[in-house]
Amino acid sequence: MSEAILSPTPAGVDKDQSLVNKVMENAQSAFQLYKRIPAEGRALFLETIGKEIEKIREELVATAGQETNLPPARLNGEINRTIGQAGLFAALLREGSWVEAAIDTEDPNRVPAKPDTRKMLMPVGPVVVFGASNFPFAFSTAGGDTVSALASGSSVVVKGHSAHAKTSELVFGAIEKAIEAAGMPPYTVQHLLGSGRSVGTALVVHPHTRGVGFTGSFAGGKALWEAAQKRETPIPVFAEMSSINPVVFFPDTLEKNGAALAKSYAGSITLGMGQFCTNPGVLLAIQSPALDSFLSLLSTEITAIEPAKMLHKGIHEAYCNGLNHMLAQKGLQVVGQATKAPGGMEAQPVVASVSAADFLANPHFTEEVFGPFSLCVVCEDKQQLAEVLKSFKGQLTTTIMATPEDVKTNTDIIELQQTLAGRIILNNVPTGVEVNASMVHGGPWPATTDGRFTSVGSSAIKRWVRPICFQNFLDEMLPVELKRGNPKGIWRVVNNVTTKEG
Amino acid sequence: MSEAILSPTPAGVDKDQSLVNKVMENAQSAFQLYKRIPAEGRALFLETIGKEIEKIREELVATAGQETNLPPARLNGEINRTIGQAGLFAALLREGSWVEAAIDTEDPNRVPAKPDTRKMLMPVGPVVVFGASNFPFAFSTAGGDTVSALASGSSVVVKGHSAHAKTSELVFGAIEKAIEAAGMPPYTVQHLLGSGRSVGTALVVHPHTRGVGFTGSFAGGKALWEAAQKRETPIPVFAEMSSINPVVFFPDTLEKNGAALAKSYAGSITLGMGQFCTNPGVLLAIQSPALDSFLSLLSTEITAIEPAKMLHKGIHEAYCNGLNHMLAQKGLQVVGQATKAPGGMEAQPVVASVSAADFLANPHFTEEVFGPFSLCVVCEDKQQLAEVLKSFKGQLTTTIMATPEDVKTNTDIIELQQTLAGRIILNNVPTGVEVNASMVHGGPWPATTDGRFTSVGSSAIKRWVRPICFQNFLDEMLPVELKRGNPKGIWRVVNNVTTKEG
Repeated sequence: MSEAILSPTPAGVDKDQSLVNKVMENAQSAFQLYKRIPAEGRALFLETIGKEIEKIREELVATAGQETNLPPARLNGEINRTIGQAGLFAALLREGSWVEAAIDTEDPNRVPAKPDTRKMLMPVGPVVVFGASNFPFAFSTAGGDTVSALASGSSVVVKGHSAHAKTSELVFGAIEKAIEAAGMPPYTVQHLLGSGRSVGTALVVHPHTRGVGFTGSFAGGKALWEAAQKRETPIPVFAEMSSINPVVFFPDTLEKNGAALAKSYAGSITLGMGQFCTNPGVLLAIQSPALDSFLSLLSTEITAIEPAKMLHKGIHEAYCNGLNHMLAQKGLQVVGQATKAPGGMEAQPVVASVSAADFLANPHFTEEVFGPFSLCVVCEDKQQLAEVLKSFKGQLTTTIMATPEDVKTNTDIIELQQTLAGRIILNNVPTGVEVNASMVHGGPWPATTDGRFTSVGSSAIKRWVRPICFQNFLDEMLPVELKRGNPKGIWRVVNNVTTKEG
Repeated sequence: MSEAILSPTPAGVDKDQSLVNKVMENAQSAFQLYKRIPAEGRALFLETIGKEIEKIREELVATAGQETNLPPARLNGEINRTIGQAGLFAALLREGSWVEAAIDTEDPNRVPAKPDTRKMLMPVGPVVVFGASNFPFAFSTAGGDTVSALASGSSVVVKGHSAHAKTSELVFGAIEKAIEAAGMPPYTVQHLLGSGRSVGTALVVHPHTRGVGFTGSFAGGKALWEAAQKRETPIPVFAEMSSINPVVFFPDTLEKNGAALAKSYAGSITLGMGQFCTNPGVLLAIQSPALDSFLSLLSTEITAIEPAKMLHKGIHEAYCNGLNHMLAQKGLQVVGQATKAPGGMEAQPVVASVSAADFLANPHFTEEVFGPFSLCVVCEDKQQLAEVLKSFKGQLTTTIMATPEDVKTNTDIIELQQTLAGRIILNNVPTGVEVNASMVHGGPWPATTDGRFTSVGSSAIKRWVRPICFQNFLDEMLPVELKRGNPKGIWRVVNNVTTKEG
């Protein structure tokens, strides 16, 4: 997503630094205790967080509604997802095989003697999580970054988003209750507010910090990532930054399914007023009467969409400015826009088109306009479509809208799409991200700072761990996951064989 | 390891750049073809590389002997390991489960409908490998970085090490024969020489490069890593840079096993004239008569070691300078040194000691002296031992020399050691790295640039891949590892259950 959340606060830096020092000392002390809590204890803790959130659901929906303009149905759905995410990691911990245990047993008869070596993933230490403005629950205080880090065994410091500060404090209250109810160490999770860049950067560069999760603008994510690389000991920053999620509409499906496509994409483009990282910001197709007809139908659909309020003033201003700047680019034509004039913080949904030649000549067209805007790039032929695809930077998703016939005749284009993004979708809209073991919500730079990881789904835990190999250890010294006899009953690779045997 | 291998070459930069451009274009074209080669084809290719190396073993040993001063037994052992590594990855590819396939099947009845999502690891693209001077085979042209990248499906460009240029060319000749014999695309592996920094940096910053493997000095690794972070699209650099591999000798084992410990550590400190990344460069213990006795025995052992030639002139000079600088530090006392005076490029094995107080007051003591040198830090008590451990930066290994009694009474120290390194060893020497699925040859910065990965063992393949999620794909569009019915018969996580079922 594209949004400026950070602004410099020259004053109060010393006070901020001393607060950050105290918080990170607490986080480090908590980590020393929390990392020893067995998986079952961490699982119960995560479930308790979910229960405490459930207890204050009504208050959360009311408060977040006021702060973010999001409707109750969406907020309730997001609370369900947030509780579900905590439960997903609880289940992952109970099953236990996520630690990637690998064991090679000793062979004293080999020359030289072969030692016993056992490896698993272990938590790295305190993690700093930045709340995201567009997901006040699922990507904020008790969101995916927080629960995945807690699942790994790391303590967490949340920098709440100032655009939903009260919601963030309420959620943190639920976490604090869960810490007490589940008997977790004090300061296992801490919460800071403050809209300035100084607190955020101070958290990232503090020596105790070992990992960072962020969802926001490219400028904000890159600044944190750069600060982390300049540390004496650099640390990973997992920032999800920007994506325009190219969708390719192939000829046969435009011919056969134009009306249905127009309906579903008008919905996807304007879902949540376009304030999703997976919003389809660019639509690609080869010129044809079927494309003209699709765009005309899409225009009709878009004109009927009701403008609605955006998350906050800053996002609304950024959308208006971004949209106006985009509309002023050479070659751009408006395809359709909501007829009802937007008022106040409302966003006007707009779809536009541009020729591939104009698109390729102007890098500005590949920049994200965060909100209900999408740009159709009209290509002369397949070769030009490939050129346009090659011009994109890394993306979270790319989508193939195609009949089986289209798939057969476009393997080259589809293969190209696979180099572009973390998730490749066939005949679905990109909005709507499943939270499961097979999800990749990530992608090559600049979609994220590290396309080797995902911020959604159970693999998100892998961001907060590193492997440690124990050589020749006595059984009583080993973590339970690596002990002889496999008392935890997890899947392990023992002498290159995947097994639950000891 | 600590060694200056890079020197600026202001001349010839334009020529270098045009060569690098051509090589990387070739690597990119080769990748487009090579990534489609099925796992079995890549496995056969890796085995063929091993066979072609075997065919020229005698010539390789003779040439490398001349270039590196390493004895035939060591070089033959290293060739065995190199061929074994290629075979390990061939076996990994045939078994196939390394791709971390995860599948969540569709549920059309859920509201909204749940799509089918399938994830696996896929190769990132051309990889640049820098040969290491201290392993002319196992960490160079056809070494672990190269074969792990080839196993992943990435093409490879090797920057051969100038200190064993002829050996590197011979090994590359074997790879070229294997490319032809196994029917791989031309340019799947390419080879460049040149001692200048310009070629190396140009390879790292070229837009087609997607990953880098390096083993060498901290300065060299950090420079490449920084260049990679400054790219428009940053890429991972896996640099193994420096480690002094702290060994803690606990009181009871010093009391009971002093003589055996002195013998095995004199051997480990001087193995290969100390030119291993896992060389035990610092020994920690609490002051006691048993420690005095151990040091006296260690001194006797060290005096009997024959000086031998180091790998090349640069390394020998760096050892002499580093040693002299270390010996000049306040508080350092020589415990023992080889009595036979070294000649020419020979290194003199030396063991020294220092009080923990002096050690803690002078950060220079934690710097690596690459060669047969080790420093014993004498602590007053357990608390000071903990302080010394806390003063270390990230390490490849740390070792616990302890009886069961020591283990019982020192859980706090042992836990501290686990935060320090990628491999934690009980009652073995750190030299000698197993090449298997449970190895971690890596560790927190500055041991490596990325402690989440290993450069030795089958997990090294994970450095050259990223996950891709395919949503709602038709079976014929999916990679074989993700197809319905599981035709490859690999372990997959299907709806959160690890299974070989379809």
